[in-house]
Amino acid sequence: MQVRALLFDVFGTLVDWRGSVAREAERVLAPLGHVLDWHTFADAWRAEYQPALARVRDGRRRYTTLDVLHRENLERVLPTFGVGAIADATLEELTLAWHRLDAWPDSVPALARLRTRFWLAPVSNGNITLMVGIARHNGFVWDAVLGADLARDFKPRPLVYLRACQALSLPPGACLMVAAHASDLLAAATCGLRTAFVARPLEHGPGHGADTPPPGSIDYSASDLADLARQLGG
Amino acid sequence: MQVRALLFDVFGTLVDWRGSVAREAERVLAPLGHVLDWHTFADAWRAEYQPALARVRDGRRRYTTLDVLHRENLERVLPTFGVGAIADATLEELTLAWHRLDAWPDSVPALARLRTRFWLAPVSNGNITLMVGIARHNGFVWDAVLGADLARDFKPRPLVYLRACQALSLPPGACLMVAAHASDLLAAATCGLRTAFVARPLEHGPGHGADTPPPGSIDYSASDLADLARQLGG
Repeated sequence: MQVRALLFDVFGTLVDWRGSVAREAERVLAPLGHVLDWHTFADAWRAEYQPALARVRDGRRRYTTLDVLHRENLERVLPTFGVGAIADATLEELTLAWHRLDAWPDSVPALARLRTRFWLAPVSNGNITLMVGIARHNGFVWDAVLGADLARDFKPRPLVYLRACQALSLPPGACLMVAAHASDLLAAATCGLRTAFVARPLEHGPGHGADTPPPGSIDYSASDLADLARQLGG
Repeated sequence: MQVRALLFDVFGTLVDWRGSVAREAERVLAPLGHVLDWHTFADAWRAEYQPALARVRDGRRRYTTLDVLHRENLERVLPTFGVGAIADATLEELTLAWHRLDAWPDSVPALARLRTRFWLAPVSNGNITLMVGIARHNGFVWDAVLGADLARDFKPRPLVYLRACQALSLPPGACLMVAAHASDLLAAATCGLRTAFVARPLEHGPGHGADTPPPGSIDYSASDLADLARQLGG
């Protein structure tokens, strides 16, 4: 079956969340006199991500957008870095750091090439506004924004992948999930999607063990998004 | 409150469904020996639209995409034009006529101008694939595709407008609904959105009574989309 649409994981796969959040945190907090290890702070904030999503996936909490979860997680993490009594507007500005994540250098040109041959859509756990913010910040052009808000649930729950294929009126086998994370690809494959692994060795910082291709069969394994575009005949 | 996002009705407002469906029907059916009044056929097909949506809105039927409803309506209308025994592939090709609707001449340049200043998204009763097809056919660039599939209901039900604003994390007053139809704008205004009427005098053919601005207050009334872009300072 011919691939018609590419569905993208975003955090880590297309954008450098760690470096960008560290930079934004410094930009917002340093002028207020706070001195943190900014990358460690980014890691700590991100470490709250999966537990927060798990509560929704498990049905312990109704669907809540990632923007809201990011804000809650921020308020939980800041005191552990000795930062307290922050104005609401500052917390909001900092939460929006996730809307200003920089793309990896190859993402924008590779997406532009791929868009001449395939429909492109993010299938992220980020909500629609968050995806629009990141797209505007980097110049990504999407055909549609799919993912968590459409399914009102989070990856790797099957409904998120299946609702994305359904929204494009495509069978899962005509959709290629592109991600830098094995767990995302394994879940997509279980739903019948085709899969492409893109290496992002710097996602967690130099020497901090980025993800490797999942065991078993994946359809493509690429050194970066430009390499994937080449493999797909772009 | 400043307008941040423009939300667009599509059928009639951005694209000429009547002329395009007539052309596509002739392209598909004439080679099979059928001779119809193609514009009358387009009108008859479209006349089945609101009754089909009403069954979903009223709860008599669960949410069904417009692509599916278009197909069902086509199968109901064709026999009334003396067309029977059509191959499934031909019915499917004809249903996809709605993915190949041509934009009114001013739509593409006006959207491009407006996108430099606002987030743009369709809020249509068309499903996501249908919106992607029309966008690809014409070169529309959207920030997100909102509307029926996201709300799993049809305009003018309030949830469709409210879920669109919510997806962009904007209060309704920061969203401007743009449509050539008074009923759409009145429903949006009831939800707190701002409203812009765009005249499309040829929607139903020359001299066939296009819609007029709704009574009461609307925020903008424009002679076409280029005029709206001018009024919004584009």
